Amino acid sequence: MAKTEHPVKAVGWAARDPSGVLSPFKFSRRATGEHDIQFKVLYCGICHSDLHFCKNEWGFSQYPMVPGHEIVGVATEVGSKVEKVKVGDKVGVGCLVGSCRGCDMCSQDLENYCPKQILTYSAIDTDGTLTQGGYSNIMVADEHFVVRWPENLPMDIGAPLLCAGITTYSPLRYFGLDKPGVHVGIVGLGGLGHVGVKFAKAFGAKVTVISTSEGKRQEAIGKLGADGFLNSRDPEQLQAAAATMDGIIDTVSAVHPIVPLINLLKPHGKIVMVGVPEKPLEFGTFPLIAGRKTMSGSAIGGLKETQEMIDFAAKHNVLPDVEIVPVDYVNTAMERLLKADVKYRFVIDIGNTLKSD
Amino acid sequence: MAKTEHPVKAVGWAARDPSGVLSPFKFSRRATGEHDIQFKVLYCGICHSDLHFCKNEWGFSQYPMVPGHEIVGVATEVGSKVEKVKVGDKVGVGCLVGSCRGCDMCSQDLENYCPKQILTYSAIDTDGTLTQGGYSNIMVADEHFVVRWPENLPMDIGAPLLCAGITTYSPLRYFGLDKPGVHVGIVGLGGLGHVGVKFAKAFGAKVTVISTSEGKRQEAIGKLGADGFLNSRDPEQLQAAAATMDGIIDTVSAVHPIVPLINLLKPHGKIVMVGVPEKPLEFGTFPLIAGRKTMSGSAIGGLKETQEMIDFAAKHNVLPDVEIVPVDYVNTAMERLLKADVKYRFVIDIGNTLKSD
Repeated sequence: MAKTEHPVKAVGWAARDPSGVLSPFKFSRRATGEHDIQFKVLYCGICHSDLHFCKNEWGFSQYPMVPGHEIVGVATEVGSKVEKVKVGDKVGVGCLVGSCRGCDMCSQDLENYCPKQILTYSAIDTDGTLTQGGYSNIMVADEHFVVRWPENLPMDIGAPLLCAGITTYSPLRYFGLDKPGVHVGIVGLGGLGHVGVKFAKAFGAKVTVISTSEGKRQEAIGKLGADGFLNSRDPEQLQAAAATMDGIIDTVSAVHPIVPLINLLKPHGKIVMVGVPEKPLEFGTFPLIAGRKTMSGSAIGGLKETQEMIDFAAKHNVLPDVEIVPVDYVNTAMERLLKADVKYRFVIDIGNTLKSD
Repeated sequence: MAKTEHPVKAVGWAARDPSGVLSPFKFSRRATGEHDIQFKVLYCGICHSDLHFCKNEWGFSQYPMVPGHEIVGVATEVGSKVEKVKVGDKVGVGCLVGSCRGCDMCSQDLENYCPKQILTYSAIDTDGTLTQGGYSNIMVADEHFVVRWPENLPMDIGAPLLCAGITTYSPLRYFGLDKPGVHVGIVGLGGLGHVGVKFAKAFGAKVTVISTSEGKRQEAIGKLGADGFLNSRDPEQLQAAAATMDGIIDTVSAVHPIVPLINLLKPHGKIVMVGVPEKPLEFGTFPLIAGRKTMSGSAIGGLKETQEMIDFAAKHNVLPDVEIVPVDYVNTAMERLLKADVKYRFVIDIGNTLKSD
């Protein structure tokens, strides 16, 4: 469908069905509209969502699907009304390429909560075609959904900020966990969690990593700079840390016990879920009631905040830890991601490894 | 134990064991300390918690137990340093008779979240004796935990405000559901829920009652003044009301589905749990994440806010609907309460029906 409707030839790697296997794919992009920025993709992070989407694990995947929503590149063409960037500027696109621009949420710069938001891939665009993501050589998007990339921020290492970064930055900000004197727990030390630790530290917070894996203690403290580590399988450690945290960002997308985490919170403490386990979680109301505690969810961030996050990361040197891979490694990368065998994010070197013909 | 340790003779009705059966009981109260107010109990509400406590359903009951934490009466003796009331004044005591007075929570007038709070009954008081509640002829408490009772507020009808009232008033206030223009859902139309509807209406909010029982539609709208009614067993009604509410106060203390309630919330909506189901509830993180929604708990209120609530109720004529019963009806009342056969709160006429010898 999308193959024949647009004038700009593009190549990428796509999943064709729920096997999730990716292979080279020819498709097309729309001509650069007056508010559009077209750019050459140089790097694209591999988010765990890409894996869920490729395999249709959330049930709303649409194929053929070029995944990727941590996309960084250089502008090659800009529409007549574009004000944000000029040709040759570094740019990024994250999880969204559209929203209604008129609702309550959009008018508060919260396009990420707009009911009509358009995801960067596997979604129906305003022209009826399927959106396609960043595992491709060329990208086009309305400038509103394009982030200016700071000159001093590496494009390869920085790419995962566009999803993993904003997903942890936004709740730290919104829930007041962004200042010295607060104690923040980060549950799970993967793509999201490790960036969450870095942002929370950059905000000046005291940070404790909470993980089921004792082996991550050294990484968390020695390498990522966390102030503490808590093995969530050890009841004694949990008991000793009871009621010590102002907030927790829970990045785990597997089913896991929530009540022991709630018990780590002080009165008025907040736990924010950013992962989506496939099955329901259980909770008792008493642990929430006893300290007027709060359990919330948070989804990426709006475009204004995404720009703010990228600028903050550049200024404070908040950089994900990544493994750069060629595009033909993507299926292997997905297999390793499934086993959490990456520290902590794969980034595809699109510019140097994706052939354009 | 408590029988012999105090000088002031008192009588009440007590549960002696987890059968929960109440019977006449002689015990004692402490002499009026310099900060204490002693008062003759005239009315005491029967809270659903009393039933849970009498039967040890939460596992920390202590016997013999004189229940009751919606206690209203007239001051009979005041300590030398008491400033709040004088002999003959109307007073009330709710769920708490003590707290540490020094922690973060206490210093914010949130004694209800103090880890060392002392419950009005079935708790160990500072002198090591068991606290005993309001199903008794006489009560004594530190003035800090005594509420001044407004002259124009009926003592019988008003008694349930001291628990049911503050339990719904406090979250409506704290979570910003206390003004015109907000749409509040109240789940469950019992002792708590019906007062919640009245407070929310008094704040000027739009109120929708959410119940599994279609039969409550007429009561909710016609009698309690709710603006709408939603049968939570009807998927069509739920769908039609999706994303319309700013907040929900969930008063149900039985296991029930939460996700359909979360779906009623607008983005940034808040559901506040004030009931304690015996088994865990289930939730998915996606419904929270998709709109940065919040699920919280809330427990009664601090003393300052309880006074504010009582004064607000008196000023705005927020009165529970009650059935006044004699003290020897209390076991029958408990049985009826278990079947939700009361509209909506029993209040014991202690003054006229409890014999003092």
